Amino acid sequence: MTLLYDQVADDLAKAIRQGTLRGGDRMPSVRGLARQRSVSVATVLQAYVRLENDGLIEVRPRSGHFVRARSANPVAEPRAARLNLTPATVSVTPGVRALMQSMRDPSVIPLGTAQISPSLLPIRQLNRMLAAIAREMQDVGATYGDVSGVPTLRRQMSKRSVAWGLSLHESEFVITVGAMEAIHLALRAVAKPGDAVAVETPTYFGVLQAIEQLGMRAIEVPAVSRTGLDLDALEQVLRQGTVKAVLASPNVSNPLGAVMSDANKERLVKLCVRYNVPLIEDDVYGDLAFEGRPRPAAHWDRDGRVLLVGSISKTLAPGYRIGWIAAGRYQERIEQLKYALTVSTPPLLQMALAEFLGNGGYERHVRKLRSHLQTQVERTRNAVIDAFPEGTRVTSPAGGFVLWVELPPNVDSYALQAAALEEKISVAPGPVFSPRERFSNCIRLSCGFPWTERNDRAVRTLGRLTAQLASSRRSA
Amino acid sequence: MTLLYDQVADDLAKAIRQGTLRGGDRMPSVRGLARQRSVSVATVLQAYVRLENDGLIEVRPRSGHFVRARSANPVAEPRAARLNLTPATVSVTPGVRALMQSMRDPSVIPLGTAQISPSLLPIRQLNRMLAAIAREMQDVGATYGDVSGVPTLRRQMSKRSVAWGLSLHESEFVITVGAMEAIHLALRAVAKPGDAVAVETPTYFGVLQAIEQLGMRAIEVPAVSRTGLDLDALEQVLRQGTVKAVLASPNVSNPLGAVMSDANKERLVKLCVRYNVPLIEDDVYGDLAFEGRPRPAAHWDRDGRVLLVGSISKTLAPGYRIGWIAAGRYQERIEQLKYALTVSTPPLLQMALAEFLGNGGYERHVRKLRSHLQTQVERTRNAVIDAFPEGTRVTSPAGGFVLWVELPPNVDSYALQAAALEEKISVAPGPVFSPRERFSNCIRLSCGFPWTERNDRAVRTLGRLTAQLASSRRSA
Repeated sequence: MTLLYDQVADDLAKAIRQGTLRGGDRMPSVRGLARQRSVSVATVLQAYVRLENDGLIEVRPRSGHFVRARSANPVAEPRAARLNLTPATVSVTPGVRALMQSMRDPSVIPLGTAQISPSLLPIRQLNRMLAAIAREMQDVGATYGDVSGVPTLRRQMSKRSVAWGLSLHESEFVITVGAMEAIHLALRAVAKPGDAVAVETPTYFGVLQAIEQLGMRAIEVPAVSRTGLDLDALEQVLRQGTVKAVLASPNVSNPLGAVMSDANKERLVKLCVRYNVPLIEDDVYGDLAFEGRPRPAAHWDRDGRVLLVGSISKTLAPGYRIGWIAAGRYQERIEQLKYALTVSTPPLLQMALAEFLGNGGYERHVRKLRSHLQTQVERTRNAVIDAFPEGTRVTSPAGGFVLWVELPPNVDSYALQAAALEEKISVAPGPVFSPRERFSNCIRLSCGFPWTERNDRAVRTLGRLTAQLASSRRSA
Repeated sequence: MTLLYDQVADDLAKAIRQGTLRGGDRMPSVRGLARQRSVSVATVLQAYVRLENDGLIEVRPRSGHFVRARSANPVAEPRAARLNLTPATVSVTPGVRALMQSMRDPSVIPLGTAQISPSLLPIRQLNRMLAAIAREMQDVGATYGDVSGVPTLRRQMSKRSVAWGLSLHESEFVITVGAMEAIHLALRAVAKPGDAVAVETPTYFGVLQAIEQLGMRAIEVPAVSRTGLDLDALEQVLRQGTVKAVLASPNVSNPLGAVMSDANKERLVKLCVRYNVPLIEDDVYGDLAFEGRPRPAAHWDRDGRVLLVGSISKTLAPGYRIGWIAAGRYQERIEQLKYALTVSTPPLLQMALAEFLGNGGYERHVRKLRSHLQTQVERTRNAVIDAFPEGTRVTSPAGGFVLWVELPPNVDSYALQAAALEEKISVAPGPVFSPRERFSNCIRLSCGFPWTERNDRAVRTLGRLTAQLASSRRSA
């Protein structure tokens, strides 16, 4: 005799297999389904437990039940790059320029840039807080303000750092014009023009542009999409003694979406201690890890060698241009550099953010945002798996909202970018994520916007274009 | 028989000679004085014409009659530096750090930093405009915004450039995080680490810090307090062929307060053409020239080699951190550099500024501000002349709100800075204005705050400390 809950579970499993319910979808509500099937709530809950045990669905804390991304997924992860111990001069700017230009056309579907849909951000609430402050604090803006930031915001950052497992004091933060200013300051604080910096590869092109503009060189350390930075490779690099700093994103790297294990983060910091180099830790996606906020590597820092960088551009308001750096022993140097570069970060915007972090429900917002993004990533991933030709590999990111797609080896991502732009779709070509312009057959796809028919069509178009490029190159 | 208007004029002249009315003071209103003296308005006007002819008072357009700074002033202008053709590595940061620290104490009288009293800025009006925009434009801030700036502000900048005699198109502007970001971008756009840049000397320490941080070197070109950059010296420097750019402030230099003549600006641009170097023109004080807005050197630019930099930090709102650059042929390069450094300037603040420039009465405000600052500068200057020991020289700036004071040769400005700080007064020591740390016996005094008893006491204290240092050093 089939048990009642098994019948419910079987029906749902079929819906999942057939694609009626797809990876990332929210499962029907327990009460609603009980009513609809005329069974008890307990029966539905038992059915969900079985589906969870079967690996078909998953519970997300405070969000509910969701269909898991296909567990028996036959699609492989992208391959890691090979290690090259020679520092490279960086010149990614031409590729980035083409990407920037594609951003300016609002009719283009923006799969190329890591931006979140405004509909997912509490910007109205934040702007209302700004309006109130601009009315009340009538003199703010008439002075430069402290180079380190306004006290209320630094206090809130200190509070937030407790959730990161760090408990930084407010005096340890310098508020910056987004994370990119912070990364520039950090690089300048620890290295000179001509110096080599170890970066994970592939890595965010903005970081590479900073290295390029500062006249530094980069050594690429391979990163793996599931586990992040290859620490054995990093040790080989550090053993050479030529590297002046390590720059990495242990929590949700970009573009791979990897979160390093705590053990690996600890080893990363220990390696930096052993070879006496500072670690610039880019944590901008840390709040968007799907399983909840992981600790930064800075947690294992004992001697102030980690320069931790974050921002609100990926969670609240990119247009507020607010980031921060907790720079350990480099704090004073960072303040000097910041003073000469931008003097201060606009105080009014900092005050509005402090108000939001204090009273705006940031934690609740980020939980919801993570869940939305996870759904969007899974939807996009499934569409890629359906639409792209054989030989395509794609990441299963542990957070954030980008996918790294390895195309068949003969497909040139610049050719795909150009063909896609003809169809009003932007993608980020692989070579801009590498100082040596590797990854010529990879692209990064952004999943920051709610999934719609339009996205679905866009991914199908990309799949078709990729297939065409793959076969034309083969026959050529 | 003494004419009636001569009697009135004589009485006023006496009041000026005795110091009852002092340089920079507004003269009594014509009507009020007529009533008080029981004479006709025409008589008072005739008296004022005579005083003007005598060089005792002056008419400021749309502001009224003011007592002129002592015309028969025996105080000499500071001397220009000697030319040294060898590029210098810059390291002004330690001196600037001490200055920064003194800024953080609100009990210190801030004669060291070039900041304007909030009471002279229309910040409430600007903040109200910001509040309205933050309420109305609910989605602004949810996206990064264009790297070049919001269209409404660039349009306003284009309109304002007509008043500068330039008529730049809105597409020629890039909005930056204050003028300092713009200067960093400009330096990076035209030179590399190790390259030499020609700067006027003395020059603003922020510019020197930018050169220092970018690993460039500086060649000091002497500047004269009345006429600005010594163009013969500049030509000697350029003839060497080692300089990659010229960085100067033809309109109201800092700290000298010089405005170059139009003929000299034209020659400056021609020199840059002949020796094929770009000119970074720092125009942040341009709107504060006492005789009205002079044309920037960019007016004579025919081939896009001038990178014109400005901001609102000296006229409206330093805490909004908004500047701009019109970079001629370097425009695209500036956009790339800006994108990688801070991505964009916060759009909400740009929109509020655009609204103010469009409807806030900017011209009227700046006229009033100039007049206030001129008065404050003259008051401070007179107090310096009264209080400082023999051998002191002081500038008569043509705009802005700083004075450059040359102390007796044996007085060390760092010693004066330290002694003044004990008395809760900050001054900027001369060496931070020079890559070679020249000007050891000079200080810069800021006159950004309305003149009060407190300022008067502070200047007297500085004079006493200077006299003590002068005599103790002599006897040592």
